[in-house]
Amino acid sequence: MITEAVKKLIRDCVGPENVLESSIDRFGYSYDSSFIPMAKEHIPELVVLPSTTEEVAKVMAIAHQYAIPVTPRGTASGRTGGCIPVAGGLSLALTRMTKVLELDERNMMVTAEAGVRTIDIYHTCAQKGLFFPPDPASWKYSTIGGNIGENAGGMRAVKYGVTSNYVMGLEVVLADGTVLHTGGKAIKNVTGYNLTQLFTGSEGTLGIITKVLLRLIPMPKARNTLQLMFGSLDNACNTIHQMLMSGLVPAAAELMDKISLQAVARHRKLDISPDIEACVVLEIDGDTQADLLKQAERISAIAHSLQVIEVRIAQSAQEVDEIWAIRRGLSSAIGAMAPNRFGEDISVPRDAFPKAVRLIRDIGKKYHLTIAVYGHAGDGNIHPSILCDLSKEGEEEVVHRAVDEIFDAALSVGGTLSGEHGIGLTKRPYIAKALGHPGISTLKAVKQALDPKGILNPGKIWE
Amino acid sequence: MITEAVKKLIRDCVGPENVLESSIDRFGYSYDSSFIPMAKEHIPELVVLPSTTEEVAKVMAIAHQYAIPVTPRGTASGRTGGCIPVAGGLSLALTRMTKVLELDERNMMVTAEAGVRTIDIYHTCAQKGLFFPPDPASWKYSTIGGNIGENAGGMRAVKYGVTSNYVMGLEVVLADGTVLHTGGKAIKNVTGYNLTQLFTGSEGTLGIITKVLLRLIPMPKARNTLQLMFGSLDNACNTIHQMLMSGLVPAAAELMDKISLQAVARHRKLDISPDIEACVVLEIDGDTQADLLKQAERISAIAHSLQVIEVRIAQSAQEVDEIWAIRRGLSSAIGAMAPNRFGEDISVPRDAFPKAVRLIRDIGKKYHLTIAVYGHAGDGNIHPSILCDLSKEGEEEVVHRAVDEIFDAALSVGGTLSGEHGIGLTKRPYIAKALGHPGISTLKAVKQALDPKGILNPGKIWE
Repeated sequence: MITEAVKKLIRDCVGPENVLESSIDRFGYSYDSSFIPMAKEHIPELVVLPSTTEEVAKVMAIAHQYAIPVTPRGTASGRTGGCIPVAGGLSLALTRMTKVLELDERNMMVTAEAGVRTIDIYHTCAQKGLFFPPDPASWKYSTIGGNIGENAGGMRAVKYGVTSNYVMGLEVVLADGTVLHTGGKAIKNVTGYNLTQLFTGSEGTLGIITKVLLRLIPMPKARNTLQLMFGSLDNACNTIHQMLMSGLVPAAAELMDKISLQAVARHRKLDISPDIEACVVLEIDGDTQADLLKQAERISAIAHSLQVIEVRIAQSAQEVDEIWAIRRGLSSAIGAMAPNRFGEDISVPRDAFPKAVRLIRDIGKKYHLTIAVYGHAGDGNIHPSILCDLSKEGEEEVVHRAVDEIFDAALSVGGTLSGEHGIGLTKRPYIAKALGHPGISTLKAVKQALDPKGILNPGKIWE
Repeated sequence: MITEAVKKLIRDCVGPENVLESSIDRFGYSYDSSFIPMAKEHIPELVVLPSTTEEVAKVMAIAHQYAIPVTPRGTASGRTGGCIPVAGGLSLALTRMTKVLELDERNMMVTAEAGVRTIDIYHTCAQKGLFFPPDPASWKYSTIGGNIGENAGGMRAVKYGVTSNYVMGLEVVLADGTVLHTGGKAIKNVTGYNLTQLFTGSEGTLGIITKVLLRLIPMPKARNTLQLMFGSLDNACNTIHQMLMSGLVPAAAELMDKISLQAVARHRKLDISPDIEACVVLEIDGDTQADLLKQAERISAIAHSLQVIEVRIAQSAQEVDEIWAIRRGLSSAIGAMAPNRFGEDISVPRDAFPKAVRLIRDIGKKYHLTIAVYGHAGDGNIHPSILCDLSKEGEEEVVHRAVDEIFDAALSVGGTLSGEHGIGLTKRPYIAKALGHPGISTLKAVKQALDPKGILNPGKIWE
């Protein structure tokens, strides 16, 4: 329990209008975009909305002194409960820190506060012909600080990498309120340990990211979209594999299985033949339209050598939108198929994609569960969605057993628990299996070193 | 002092034939490729040459129990004293662990022991059409474990990044002998903190890297080389800058200043006009010869808009070799100009390259020292070489003052102490200035967490 005197200290740091204390306000900070049920125990004692690094530092100094748990967050778009304040204390929302501080065109880098929405970073840079590639599905509302905290991925990762590949430096407020600066604009930098990458993906457990320095690349001049329909999942996967081996790297390579496709067909009233077992959507980009045409021809040739049923090359912006609408509508179409849905985020070696999908199907059969599978096939990141009805007796236990086996399947093919959503709360029970005892104790040693009182986002990543 | 009983334990781990004890043998492990003078205090008490991870683990368990310093090394090609065993104890050389364990063509990854030479990784992969891009100058003799420990760069970093960009996973023996596995073949992986990148570039102070998993890319099908001569350094830098801004990224973009060029001219008996202030050597690569031609034309147009004096596009493999011979011969040509030479490795934001070079020239004038400057202009990594004669009274002190000011110059333009050589011993005095107190205490906290007895490569990175 935070005493009234300490609450006053916190109000003095950020102004009373930036501390939310009513229970209805605090309730709004007790959940995220995961399937974790809302719960009274997740309601923070205070919600604090700082607007500067100095304010964050002062709040952390107080929290450190009085050993108050602090759970940082952006807009709570996370999928694994990472920003749910399970230990009470403060919910520290960076959502008022929304300034893009500098767009350095000559060095192709942008500096921003942590609360800037990722899509705003994208647009600010795009106006100057510069490209910030990471595009997690949440990018219209998620913040860059949250994306870095989780090391968010997205569809463009196959060609352009994930968020961490663009983080050049960070401003981080440590557990005791110290302000740390890591990295910088020098592209090559081996001065000391790579703290920038240590904080990236640390899920708010090592420090509060307040400012970010991101590198950019020139915006591709031309883009197009292709849709390939296959009668076999293996042929779909092999098409992507052969493209990549030949040096042809699409900006996105998404795959949907039959269950996913039929869900979209029903939801959007499309007519998709039942012969189609897998659909691949590709974004290609390059310097000129002629470049794109050449790429599309090479892809088409590979797909035809692997019995593709239909190749559609978008001929207009409208057709591009039509094709992507299928992929973008997937999550809600699948969600509409059943009362409840557990979305997972395993990641496997690229060549194990078909095997992992087959293992997931077998798990579905074993437990009589419908599991839709789609994902970023170009980088082996699979999103299985278990469709279920938790009001049925015993269903929840069955689902949990199926999830366990999905994680086992991922590990059995050399994969891991999470490609882009993080561990948070939902995957805590499995991390020891993924990393082993030496891995977990190394994580804990690092955590203990940087947050000896354990006040930063307690209860996350491991049990 | 290691007792005879403990020496016996160590001999039992690796076999007595793999423990070097004679003073002449141990002397060979007391220096590296830096300009740090040889010294009796740098001779290790024992040199240990394990051949398996298990042997490394056993040796570390003994070292941990008896608090014996352990300095890991490959072939000692480092430039900053990183593998000099300044605290005595064991020199642990990984040079017998030379197996490439797996080339996974489908996932485009290679697994190797830490003692494999980097060029052998390159050739093994190249035979299958796969490309491991990092090419530090030492790559013909340096080991991959050492390259990862230092996060080595090289000429291809401008397009392909540095060593860390290719490290997917590591096997690391921790200070107490625990074997840790990080990362894996899943391309997207956010399970726990990024330990892979924490160990990469940690200069042997956090663990002993024993195995490495590296990602590869398809080998470019065509390559060519261009040489551009400029009457002004700014025009040379701006040519590189405009190329990059237009999305034209060369595989290498090297720059040499007039002093460097004249050194090569003298050394190799070439005729280089005194009007030339800067020479840029570019490697371009792509899918076809037509691609290369188009790139060369675009580069030539940019260079001509910036008053280039001469553009030479290699017309044969022999001409490629001729051009690169100038760049490759640079280090020895400059070394031949004076009895002693201090080579540095600062890294600055790309647009600060000309300013940094001017600051370095001013420092040379101030101290009446000749400073040759060359470097990887595409990524802002500058290698200034101070030419001097340490037998002259007072010269050493003057050189040290000039080095101090070079580091200050790098920091003043937003740069850092080291782009690719690491901190080791030589840059320890400067790191606090570069990282600030919060930076240094964070590094120390991480070190303390992973190596509480401080036995791993003691005396490095900070003072």
